[in-house]
Amino acid sequence: MRIAILLIFLANFLFAQKNEDSLSIRKIYSYHLTESASYVNLHSLCKDVGARLSGSKQAEKAVEWAKQAMVKAGADTVYLVPCMVPHWVRGKKEQCYVNGNSKNNLESFAICVLGGSVATPTQGITAKVIEVFSFDELEKLGAEKIKGNIVFYNVSFDQNFVHTGSAYGKAVKYRSGASMAAKYGAVASITKSMTTSNNDFPHTGTMKYDTLVQQKIPAFAISAKGAKRLNTLLSQNKNLELHLFSDCKTLPDEPSYSVVGEIRGNETPNEIIVVGGHLDSWDLGEGAHDDGAGIVQSIEVLSSFKKLGVKNKRTIRAVAFMNEENGTRGGKSYAAMAAKENKKHIAALESDMGGFTPKAIGIDAKKDTLLYYKKWQPLFDPYFVFIKQGGGGVDIGELVKAGVPQFSLEPDSQRYFDFHHTADDIFENVNKRELELGAATINSFIYLIDKYGTYKK
Amino acid sequence: MRIAILLIFLANFLFAQKNEDSLSIRKIYSYHLTESASYVNLHSLCKDVGARLSGSKQAEKAVEWAKQAMVKAGADTVYLVPCMVPHWVRGKKEQCYVNGNSKNNLESFAICVLGGSVATPTQGITAKVIEVFSFDELEKLGAEKIKGNIVFYNVSFDQNFVHTGSAYGKAVKYRSGASMAAKYGAVASITKSMTTSNNDFPHTGTMKYDTLVQQKIPAFAISAKGAKRLNTLLSQNKNLELHLFSDCKTLPDEPSYSVVGEIRGNETPNEIIVVGGHLDSWDLGEGAHDDGAGIVQSIEVLSSFKKLGVKNKRTIRAVAFMNEENGTRGGKSYAAMAAKENKKHIAALESDMGGFTPKAIGIDAKKDTLLYYKKWQPLFDPYFVFIKQGGGGVDIGELVKAGVPQFSLEPDSQRYFDFHHTADDIFENVNKRELELGAATINSFIYLIDKYGTYKK
Repeated sequence: MRIAILLIFLANFLFAQKNEDSLSIRKIYSYHLTESASYVNLHSLCKDVGARLSGSKQAEKAVEWAKQAMVKAGADTVYLVPCMVPHWVRGKKEQCYVNGNSKNNLESFAICVLGGSVATPTQGITAKVIEVFSFDELEKLGAEKIKGNIVFYNVSFDQNFVHTGSAYGKAVKYRSGASMAAKYGAVASITKSMTTSNNDFPHTGTMKYDTLVQQKIPAFAISAKGAKRLNTLLSQNKNLELHLFSDCKTLPDEPSYSVVGEIRGNETPNEIIVVGGHLDSWDLGEGAHDDGAGIVQSIEVLSSFKKLGVKNKRTIRAVAFMNEENGTRGGKSYAAMAAKENKKHIAALESDMGGFTPKAIGIDAKKDTLLYYKKWQPLFDPYFVFIKQGGGGVDIGELVKAGVPQFSLEPDSQRYFDFHHTADDIFENVNKRELELGAATINSFIYLIDKYGTYKK
Repeated sequence: MRIAILLIFLANFLFAQKNEDSLSIRKIYSYHLTESASYVNLHSLCKDVGARLSGSKQAEKAVEWAKQAMVKAGADTVYLVPCMVPHWVRGKKEQCYVNGNSKNNLESFAICVLGGSVATPTQGITAKVIEVFSFDELEKLGAEKIKGNIVFYNVSFDQNFVHTGSAYGKAVKYRSGASMAAKYGAVASITKSMTTSNNDFPHTGTMKYDTLVQQKIPAFAISAKGAKRLNTLLSQNKNLELHLFSDCKTLPDEPSYSVVGEIRGNETPNEIIVVGGHLDSWDLGEGAHDDGAGIVQSIEVLSSFKKLGVKNKRTIRAVAFMNEENGTRGGKSYAAMAAKENKKHIAALESDMGGFTPKAIGIDAKKDTLLYYKKWQPLFDPYFVFIKQGGGGVDIGELVKAGVPQFSLEPDSQRYFDFHHTADDIFENVNKRELELGAATINSFIYLIDKYGTYKK
């Protein structure tokens, strides 16, 4: 009998607790949907600062912008974590057209040179184009067919994946296909953009040269539409020649910063919860989804704790990491700083998959650990958000090496690679409510971690 | 010991069964993401047919279009279910501008007359504008303030709801606010559009006159941006006059049809599973999300059963219902036909919430029944789709009255009311993969209902 009463008491207690959490989370969602500054902040970051590739003047401006936004959000302390970043510049608008006799009749393609590439010679490159659909095919053709030509990696984005990140993961190696092409004597490479769409925006992104291949050749990306057209032209004329030009270059590294804003914990301030995204973006577009969204969402977590009067137990740190796109120097220098602090990072959550409707919180954990967080699933059911296995982020990846549990916001991925790394990744392509729901979701999860802590064995 | 062995056997059996279903569902998703005709069909419906309000020539064309699409999808039998539909026409482009002395300097607003409204007199209506924020406020003002004036319902769309359909449900009564305004002597009503956005598209939709109020006055909708501007102007000048014009009219009812395409069941063909959407649309835009999406998704369910070689036990019927928007005549005549058939409808599923990423299958059922379907949740986890309580549709609502269980596809609702009933509900605003994932989700659920049947007490 006594046990039964105890069980009823316990059940009531658990119900009350769950109910209290439900209400708190509903308040957090309401804050974001009706009061938050996410959308106006994103507008400001996109329009007042704009594209902000590491090492650029705009990246410098973005650091100042983030500092001010974090102060405005109510952070107790705002500070910078220095790092040296690469400084690659695109230079003049690239050129890519079909070589022909009549200057008035040159068909051109929407291309961009990939981040980290070397330039063409000043007069450009004119050569025949060899189309391949895989590295295997390239190897089979070998030096005999490739030498002196441009390699065109026409590799399609696999639409069969439900989560487009998986298709990206499968295709992205071709973005660094220049060295493999150079091994067989190619003079340049062109890679079909990594995209779900069929439009005419070329997608930039970082490319790396294989240190084992001495020759560095320029590496371009062509729009999906352009790739289709080039394929057609090549099927009509195997001797088709393209003219390519870029004067991009790599300058000396520049000093830069990640920006940290924190609200000190009221009970165990030496326990740190990080929520962040990356402040740098590619030089095309405005870095709206990638990753202006993650930045403004992280800043609004601070703002909501202040505005809703939540007394966080642990210290909440919003971190705007520098240089995710081409170096992760911000992530590395932050982790190095964290290693020297006499504090403990208990969790790190990254939002870097766009400002779309949240579908899940991803957790990088094994089954036992996952079950601990899965208990919170009913709290997220009203928002159609799953708590799922697998998650993390590039910037917080450096903290993970030191054993910090990592989490990520997983928004709907269907449209991300329509915009990713293009001139079309602009403020206008972010929906206010989707952005806000993403912020509310990470905010709610951070709230629960702060209240109940992370999994302990 | 024997029970233990039996349990292991049972567990293995259940696991194998679950695994087989997982694979079947993965095949269904693959079909839709890589082979389906949903997107090209939607393009054709939007561009070759276009807007298709009941009674119009385009609605007639849409019937022919649906017939052909269902034959092409591999339906065994395609037939029409007749119904008489209302025939309201918008007429000339509406006018709404600030009345003033100088004809060259008239500020105008983006408005549209609401479906079912009466026209203004030929010379239009010029009157002062009384802004109210609720029916309560209107009643308090009473005939003294309202008589002879235009009532402007400036009721905001409540952004606090996570599911935008709830905000719509709360605000939509103001679309039929004309009679309430007429009761106090108003000469016209203008309602702020039911929308999540702040853009300049007015949203049409059906309005109804209260039969208890004799006077019918013209009912308009103004864009969200226009409502904000009008509010500002009224705060500056309480005597501001607007000029309104519409020559819309209601013509006699027209004969029309719902279109049915079915694949006969292989085991119990007299058990019917309906999957459908509505073929008619508003006259603005192209009816892309509302409800071209539901039509092409339903048709592709047939196509996938054929292409994947699924031997359905029950008869699967795709139904393109006519006249959801302003009469539900198609839903009613279909239900009347069904009542006379010597067959049993075991389930009806409607897709009429846009071609956005699926978030849930909604089930109109009590707890016991829900638990039966909830067993399928793990099959939908990989697609981030919830099985949830609450669901249905306007067209299938008529079948429900005869006891048929109803289900609905619930796509992400965040952007639906940006486009709903506007000139911007066009093909270009539907994302291919989102549309296809919606089709795959209903297809998978229909597959499971066909295989396992619906809940039986």
